[in-house]
Amino acid sequence: MTGPAVVALGGGHGLAASLEALKLVCDDITAVVTVADNGGSSGRLRDEFDVLPPGDLRMALAALCDDTEWGHTWRDVLQHRFPGDGPLGGHALGNLLITALWDLDRDPVAGLDLVGRLLNARGRVLPMAAVPLEITAQVEGLDPADRSRVQTLRGQVAVASTTGQVRSIALEPHDPPSAPATIEAVNAADWVILGPGSWFTSVMPHLLVPGLRDALHDTAARRLLTLNLEHSGETAGFSCARQVEALADHAPRMRLDVVLADPVAVDDVDELRAAAGRLGAEVVIAPVAQRGAPGHHDSLRLAAAYRDLFG
Amino acid sequence: MTGPAVVALGGGHGLAASLEALKLVCDDITAVVTVADNGGSSGRLRDEFDVLPPGDLRMALAALCDDTEWGHTWRDVLQHRFPGDGPLGGHALGNLLITALWDLDRDPVAGLDLVGRLLNARGRVLPMAAVPLEITAQVEGLDPADRSRVQTLRGQVAVASTTGQVRSIALEPHDPPSAPATIEAVNAADWVILGPGSWFTSVMPHLLVPGLRDALHDTAARRLLTLNLEHSGETAGFSCARQVEALADHAPRMRLDVVLADPVAVDDVDELRAAAGRLGAEVVIAPVAQRGAPGHHDSLRLAAAYRDLFG
Repeated sequence: MTGPAVVALGGGHGLAASLEALKLVCDDITAVVTVADNGGSSGRLRDEFDVLPPGDLRMALAALCDDTEWGHTWRDVLQHRFPGDGPLGGHALGNLLITALWDLDRDPVAGLDLVGRLLNARGRVLPMAAVPLEITAQVEGLDPADRSRVQTLRGQVAVASTTGQVRSIALEPHDPPSAPATIEAVNAADWVILGPGSWFTSVMPHLLVPGLRDALHDTAARRLLTLNLEHSGETAGFSCARQVEALADHAPRMRLDVVLADPVAVDDVDELRAAAGRLGAEVVIAPVAQRGAPGHHDSLRLAAAYRDLFG
Repeated sequence: MTGPAVVALGGGHGLAASLEALKLVCDDITAVVTVADNGGSSGRLRDEFDVLPPGDLRMALAALCDDTEWGHTWRDVLQHRFPGDGPLGGHALGNLLITALWDLDRDPVAGLDLVGRLLNARGRVLPMAAVPLEITAQVEGLDPADRSRVQTLRGQVAVASTTGQVRSIALEPHDPPSAPATIEAVNAADWVILGPGSWFTSVMPHLLVPGLRDALHDTAARRLLTLNLEHSGETAGFSCARQVEALADHAPRMRLDVVLADPVAVDDVDELRAAAGRLGAEVVIAPVAQRGAPGHHDSLRLAAAYRDLFG
């Protein structure tokens, strides 16, 4: 296999879907993963050890595992969660492994690279920032007495599950250092891909890390935005165009080359083309959803779309 | 390297020392590890998940790691303990990994073999029984008002740290099933080695598992008992001969071929020879202690002694 050098930015299941597709069509993959999760196993590990939240990093590594018995075995081990509600209940083993590696060697990238070697991973997984982050959001519609009142929500869990309309997000600290390896990967990429994923809590945060945002502005790579297939929680009711506009709101200087959308998910193609066009992008419409689960990307169809775009 | 097929029985640091020596002189090593620990990380995992205590199994695997950068890296990861006193504080990462593997696949041997593959381990690590065990001990001297009164202590931690004199130990359940792979290894061995290690809580328990005791009686292998270098806690004040007698007390039909002792540790060589002779064994005296830490076995000196015995 050859293919371009690709940097995929995101977090959670959306990024994992993108990585599972990318490993079918290219060899040189770098995942850049949000580090603002404050829920579940990751949130508990942040509370106990003040580390980067490992969960989305683990999920990206699992997605890039070598497709052999060895790779699948260790992927399943890393993804395994302890049962019950005791002290270990709900923790993913891979989160504990990554946390232990960070405790042994304070360079977070070295620990992630070692897990990648364990999985014979088909790419590299890096954090979007070198320190744990908190997401805050300006949210409208939470006050029944005043639906236009804008309130501040704090923490990825609260933002991702809000019943209000997210107007914007910010990071604390607002000026986090990026990991040098992350910037190098963006500089050296042929393509950078934003999305799919939870729009405000997994995709937009990358644009608020100054060093990473500057690299995304300045790289010679082509920039692809992969839109979500359905919207709930933080983006309930969003149109495709509104996703593009949210990106422009958070990174006004950002230019895009391609916006990729599934035909079933596109509500108003003209509105989408107009929004994309304002960022310099063409809209590519291709079937990338799973047949039985239209809210989820299908790795083979997404791989086909990426391959066709990469030319 | 060639060398005989060796089964080493024990637990904790004593077994680890024996394994680190054995991997220098033979290729075919099976460690058979006690599963009665109820303290520390292992005890907490027993409480939370009702699993075999993984700690001594982890330590044996670590001792058998391949002596390469990869093997040492993963050994150090498995041995790493989380800091602090939070929910994860004090847990060894390897204990958590082994517990997760047992949760994914209920065959405990398959999980241990996978950790062995991760470490490129120079041998196999098996549990002495297929179910978690509790040690009970008959202990004299704990009642200040009646020093001859014999009381029952329960649990490895209590027995190992008693200030009384241990008269005998028993297991609960008293008739635990052994792991078939363990019996096969004993049957196929050229040498079986008991000790060193905590005498009542790491070495004697193997003799109380009926299937394992029968295999140790019946195997055509030569039987070697490696004595401890110093005595504290459960065997405070023990002579070398008393160690041999404790074995005879717990396994009256057991015959031995060799009793290995360090010259500095031997208090009364005639008494030791008499005790060993009653079990059919010759006494071999060889310097096997560390120069700077005379209570600990030196892996190179112990390897030399084993090699000379294996002939």
